Parts: sequence; C-alpha cells; structure tokens
Amino acid sequence: MMRGFDLPRRLVAEGLGTLLLVATVIGSGIMAETLTKDVALALLGNTLPTGAILVVLITILGPISGAHFNPAVTLVFTVRGELHPHHAAQYIAAQVLGGILGAMVAHAMFGLPLLEFSAKARTGFPQWLAEFVAAFGLVVTVVGGLQFREAAIPWLVGLYITAAYWFTASTSFANPAVAIARSLTNTFSGIRAQDLPGFIVAEVLGAMVAAGFMTWLLRGTETTKKAIR
Amino acid sequence: MMRGFDLPRRLVAEGLGTLLLVATVIGSGIMAETLTKDVALALLGNTLPTGAILVVLITILGPISGAHFNPAVTLVFTVRGELHPHHAAQYIAAQVLGGILGAMVAHAMFGLPLLEFSAKARTGFPQWLAEFVAAFGLVVTVVGGLQFREAAIPWLVGLYITAAYWFTASTSFANPAVAIARSLTNTFSGIRAQDLPGFIVAEVLGAMVAAGFMTWLLRGTETTKKAIR
Amino acid sequence: MMRGFDLPRRLVAEGLGTLLLVATVIGSGIMAETLTKDVALALLGNTLPTGAILVVLITILGPISGAHFNPAVTLVFTVRGELHPHHAAQYIAAQVLGGILGAMVAHAMFGLPLLEFSAKARTGFPQWLAEFVAAFGLVVTVVGGLQFREAAIPWLVGLYITAAYWFTASTSFANPAVAIARSLTNTFSGIRAQDLPGFIVAEVLGAMVAAGFMTWLLRGTETTKKAIR
Amino acid sequence: MMRGFDLPRRLVAEGLGTLLLVATVIGSGIMAETLTKDVALALLGNTLPTGAILVVLITILGPISGAHFNPAVTLVFTVRGELHPHHAAQYIAAQVLGGILGAMVAHAMFGLPLLEFSAKARTGFPQWLAEFVAAFGLVVTVVGGLQFREAAIPWLVGLYITAAYWFTASTSFANPAVAIARSLTNTFSGIRAQDLPGFIVAEVLGAMVAAGFMTWLLRGTETTKKAIR
Repeated sequence: MMRGFDLPRRLVAEGLGTLLLVATVIGSGIMAETLTKDVALALLGNTLPTGAILVVLITILGPISGAHFNPAVTLVFTVRGELHPHHAAQYIAAQVLGGILGAMVAHAMFGLPLLEFSAKARTGFPQWLAEFVAAFGLVVTVVGGLQFREAAIPWLVGLYITAAYWFTASTSFANPAVAIARSLTNTFSGIRAQDLPGFIVAEVLGAMVAAGFMTWLLRGTETTKKAIR
Repeated sequence: MMRGFDLPRRLVAEGLGTLLLVATVIGSGIMAETLTKDVALALLGNTLPTGAILVVLITILGPISGAHFNPAVTLVFTVRGELHPHHAAQYIAAQVLGGILGAMVAHAMFGLPLLEFSAKARTGFPQWLAEFVAAFGLVVTVVGGLQFREAAIPWLVGLYITAAYWFTASTSFANPAVAIARSLTNTFSGIRAQDLPGFIVAEVLGAMVAAGFMTWLLRGTETTKKAIR
Repeated sequence: MMRGFDLPRRLVAEGLGTLLLVATVIGSGIMAETLTKDVALALLGNTLPTGAILVVLITILGPISGAHFNPAVTLVFTVRGELHPHHAAQYIAAQVLGGILGAMVAHAMFGLPLLEFSAKARTGFPQWLAEFVAAFGLVVTVVGGLQFREAAIPWLVGLYITAAYWFTASTSFANPAVAIARSLTNTFSGIRAQDLPGFIVAEVLGAMVAAGFMTWLLRGTETTKKAIR
Repeated sequence: MMRGFDLPRRLVAEGLGTLLLVATVIGSGIMAETLTKDVALALLGNTLPTGAILVVLITILGPISGAHFNPAVTLVFTVRGELHPHHAAQYIAAQVLGGILGAMVAHAMFGLPLLEFSAKARTGFPQWLAEFVAAFGLVVTVVGGLQFREAAIPWLVGLYITAAYWFTASTSFANPAVAIARSLTNTFSGIRAQDLPGFIVAEVLGAMVAAGFMTWLLRGTETTKKAIR
C-alpha cells in the first residue's frame, strides 16, 4: 500500500496527519470549554470532531504513508515485519514533531501562547488501565480491519475513538505522540508532563498485547487466508 | 461466513465482543453521569459510543463468529437452523461471561469495586413492551440486512441501537447477556437483578416473533432468492 | 426493484416502516422532553434517532416496497409513472394506518394513553414555507440519489432529515402520514389537528415542484443515461 | 465527471447547492440559538446539519456540476486546469447568488426580514489564521479524496467541515460565497460586512497553498498514477 511514495513524502504525510489530528483534539477542546460549562457537552464537542477528522485523514493520507499518526501503531507494524525499524524511527520522529506543531497551530488560532505546560493530572492505576484498554482496542480494530475490511479502516478507527473517548476513564489518548503534544497545552485536553511516562508505557503495552492476541485469533485457516486481498 | 475459524476462536470472539460492548455501555454511562447533571445529555453520551463500538465490533469479529454478542440473536440463528444447538449453548455462555468481564473492566477503569448490585428499578408493562419492541426491531434489522445488504449489517445494527436507546422507554437493552452484566453495576446503565427475568423474557419473545415475521415477509419469490449472495 | 414481492408484503413493509418511523419520532421526543429542560438538547435527542432509523428502515424494507413511508413520495413516483395509481392509494392507506399504530406503540411503551389530541400550534406562512422547502429538498434528494447513487439512498434520506430537523422552522415533518400520526400525540413532536391541512398542502406542493424541477435538471444527456444502473 | 450536463444546468446545480447549504447553515443557527442558551449546544445544532447536508448535496449534485458550492474550490480547479476560467467566473456568480437566496429562504422560514446586516465581529490574526487553516484542510481533503477515493468525497467533505466547525477558532467558514451570504444575517452564524475581506483573502490563500502542496505531495510515482480511476 505504501510502495508508490518515497520516504520524504511518507514522513510529511505522517507529520501532517498528526498535526491536523492534534490541532483538532486541542482546538476543539478549547472551543468546547470556551462555549459551555457542562463538561459532558465539552467532551462531546471534543469527541465528534476527533472521530470525524480521523476518517478524513486516514482516507486521504493512508495510501501515502499508511496513516499511523501514532508511535504505538508504528511499533505494531514494525513488530509484524511490515515496516523497517529504521523507517519506524523516522515515522515516530515525524509524528512527534507533527503533534507539537499541531499544538502550536491550535494555540495560534485561538490566540494563546504557542506552547504551554499542562497542569492537568492524569495518573494512577485506573487511568493507566484505561490507556492499556484504549490502545488494546485500537490495535484490535486496526488489525482486524486490515484482515477483513481494509477499505473501512478510516471509519473503524474514527468510530472506535469516538467510543473510547467515553468508555475509557482517560478519554482514550491511546497515542504517545498525541500525548506528548497534549502535555504542551494547558487547556481541556492537556496532560501534565510528569504523567506522560505512565500513559506511554500503558499505551505501548496495550498495543503489543493486542498485536499478539490478534496474531493468535486470526491464525491459520485457509478460508481466512483467502479473505485477505 | 463462520466456517474458517475453529470453535475456540469463535467463542473468544463472542466473549471479547460482548466484553467490549458491555465495557462501552457501562463505561460511557459512568463517564456521562460523572460529567453532567442533564440526563438527556448523559443518555447521548451513552448512546453515541454504544452505536459506534457496535459498528466496529461487528465488522472485525463478524467474520470470525458472526458477531452475535447477544443470546437472543444466537437463539434466532439456532431456530433458523444456522447454528447447532450445542454451539449455541457455548456461544451464550461466552457472551454472558464476556459481559460480566466487561462490567469488571469498566469498573476497574473508573476505580469502582469490580462488581456491584444495581438498585435501578426497571419493571412494569411499559418497560417490558419496550424490550419486546427493541428486540423485535433488532432482529428485523439483522435478518433484513442479511437478506438484502450483508456488508452493511455493522452499520445497520449500530444505527438501530442508536435509535432504540431513545425511542424505547427502556433505552433498549435488547440483549439478555448485556442485561445480566448491567445488573452488576450500580451506575447509569444498571438494572436491578430482580427485574432481569421480565427483561429477558420480553427480549426473547420479541426476537422470536420477529424471526417468524421476517420468515413470512421474505418468503418465496425468485427475485428475492437471486438477491441473496 | 419492487418486482419480487407481492402486494400484501409490499403494503406490510410500507405499514411496518411507517410504524417504526413514527414510533421513533414520537418515542424519542417523549424520552427527550422527559430527560431535559433544554429544548435544543431535546431536539437533538429527537433528530439523531430519526435519522438513524431512516437509514435502517430504507435499507431493509426498500427492496420490498421501495420504502416510501410517505404519501408525498408515493405521489411523486405515481406521477413519474413508476407506481400504478391503484397501488398508490393502497400504499398511502398502509402508511397512514402504520403511522397511527406507531403513535400507539410509542404511547404504550411510555405508559401514556394510546391516542391523544395534540395541542401544539404549528401554523402560519413561515411554517408552511418550511414544510414546502422540507418536502422539496426531500424529493430532490430521493430523485437525485436514484439517478446517481441508488445504493446510498438510505444514508442520503437519513442525513437529509437530520439536517432538515434543524434548518427548517417546522423541524421538517415533510410527510403527510407522519403528520397525521403526530396529531395524535400531545407530546414533544405533536401538531394540532387543525394545523394538518396547511402542512399537508405545503408538503405535497413542495414534493411536486421538486419532481418537476428534477425532471428538467436531469434531462437528456447521453452521459446521464449511461450513469443509470 | 461534468461532461454530460450543459452549462445552464451546471450553474443551476451550483446555485441550488449553495442555496441549500447556506439555508442550512443560517437556518440551523437560528433554530439552535432560539432553543438554547448554551452556546456549545447551539454550535452542535449548527454543526451536525451542515455536515449532513454537505454529504447529501455533494452526492446528488456532484455528478452535474462537480458540487463546488465554493469560489475557493472553483479557483483551485481552475488553476489545476480542470475548469475554463470563463466557466469559473459563472460558477462563482451562481454560488454567490445562490448563497444570498439561501439566506433569504432561511429568514423567510423563520419569519425574519429577508436580508439583514450582521453585527457580529469576526476579525484579527487568529481568526484569519483559522480561515487559512480551514480552507487549507478543505482543499487537502478534496484533492486527496479525488486522488484516492473519489466516491467517498461527499462523506470526506461533510466530516471535515464537522471537525473544522470546532477545531478552528472561526468555526470554519472556508467559503467566500457562504461568507458573503452570512454577512446578510444578524443571527448565530453571521459576520460583519467589514470583516469579509480578511476572511475571503485568508480562505483563498489557504486554498491555493493547499493546491500547491498537494501537487507536490501526490506527484509522480507510477503506482500513484495507476490508483487514479
């Protein structure tokens, strides 16, 4: 899927996608908390744009770079042997850089300082479990989607994140690059820098466990192999 | 559709799907009632994630197990002769077990005791009628979708449940396994254990009546038969 | 599209579809106004289920009866020569009967008297213009969809009505059978019986003007004809 | 895609589409601000109908005129050599005229004076940056969609605008014709006439930069060329 484009274009696609994803997460959070005092309504105003932009970004950038926008997803594809480790490192760098630029773009649009430090505490076992579950479900969605309905992946990811914003106690970051960028905004969607390690470890663990689980679940029948196109 | 996978994997798919479905129903309910005092907004925060996760789960697990996640649906397929009664019993066990685990996962993510007893009364004729209608509509949707647009079933079920959360007075449980799991949470989406029998009877009745009705409605023309792929 | 099914089944499909549509419109309105005092939120809780159930009902019943559920739409197809006038009369009777039964089902589920008279005034030129626009847009959507992307019609109608609930001042009834049924509920979505004639005249006018307009707009090029499948 | 229809029909399609788009934007804004005092909820009641109607209008009018409904998009296609400059001028005239008529239709449905002057200030660097970003993202979406998944463009645009309403500080006008029409309503979605030039310049700049960027991003591999159908 990724063969037609050279590495620079793939890295730009990963960077641009993560930029626009983070700008949407942070920007819609600012818009929402500015307009209402009801936190559930603010979360809804944060959820719907995030789910919607994911469908768009994965559809239009997926054919270029695979549309990971997420180091945990990039690691899964590397472990599965579908991405060279050297390329993976560059993918992750592009994602992190894109995410930080996305925070800056969101802040500039809303007239805030380009980067801030978040004061929002997100820590403790329930939060880490939530991130583990969030990333587990995301990778189950991506790998299962690739197996059975590749063309639907943009929708599946957008809908999964829409659900995970609400059913996980952490509102489902599920993405180390986005988490880093969100540590640089002191608004609705922020997270304290010191809480990043717990989130990132939980996300990578959840993604890896899901990758192993799905390898087992999808293993082996002839019928299954034929279903791959 | 189910032939490629062995029974253990099919049971794991049923269990995992029901687990994630229940975690979404209960988890988003907790999130919603924590964030707002407006009950309509809380129901919206419960509805959208449930509809969204159903599209995802049915798409990625349907090719493995059929993605019932629901004993009433499993009974319908058994009565139609598409599932062996012995397998059906195991399907239902996996669904109930998965549902209970889903309640535990949701509780753990939100820092609550793993299992509770619900104190939420949901009983009386209007509620039972609502569950009958909810399950009737669900089976009409599934059987009609299988007949005319199989690839759309994940969307049809997700959208049907989105509507049924609001138009049925019971918020449409429509699923005995999910109902049992919801009796084990004392949060937004709970139901008292003593109210379970009425719900389960109404759900199974609604599903069975719908199965008979659809057999009549779809019976018999040549054109119809050709439309099946 | 309708040839495979006999008339009784087609009439049952029209009746069941209109029943479930009306049960959704009225039921979700009752649910919404019970749960919140914010009228915009109540309208949202009325809109989303209506749009969602339309996608479902048109997908699963469309191959049987065409899924009109609406006398104005039935008239358009009759005028276009795609439905025999005698059948059209029976379609409309099934729709009106189904709609009334839908109001009764909704009321029974919420423990209300089976039928009531609405006291909600909906009259005057702006409301009539709104219904004219609502029905005009609906028929433009249906006829344009049939021409260019028939498989998408369930989504197109669901999305159109989702929009029209909000952009027309009348919340877009756009359907004489549904309007009649809504005169029999004294809840959120009701309309006074004496205001029905204005609504129905405006809806039929809007539908007919749209049918004529679309005939002109889509007329005549070779390329267009080839696009029909 | 546009060859089958003569210019008058294409211009009518552009005019009608922009009319219904503006009627939806303005009408749903009026409905929303009438029903609630919560501005986030009002924005939600403005967002969902706009995203929904875009999917409908682009699906049913795209095969006739290309469904630009937006002078910035028309300019992009002209610069790419896909539309004759003379036709582009007529497209833009039809869009502006359609937009103004759409404002009048919305006002008439809600019983307001047909045209008003907006008193709503929308100016300053953050707003202009937001419009630049909004139009940049829109053109990235359209051009990327045309390259990789043409049939999905109605959904991609509808979802992109759904997101952009919230993540851009300006609620994403991203359309000079719609901006002009919105200067003629003194309701939720209005903009002061004197703030139009800043918006329009930012929108055209964002669209043009995106067009250039996408030409680079999508340039050149054999695989890419084959992906075009």
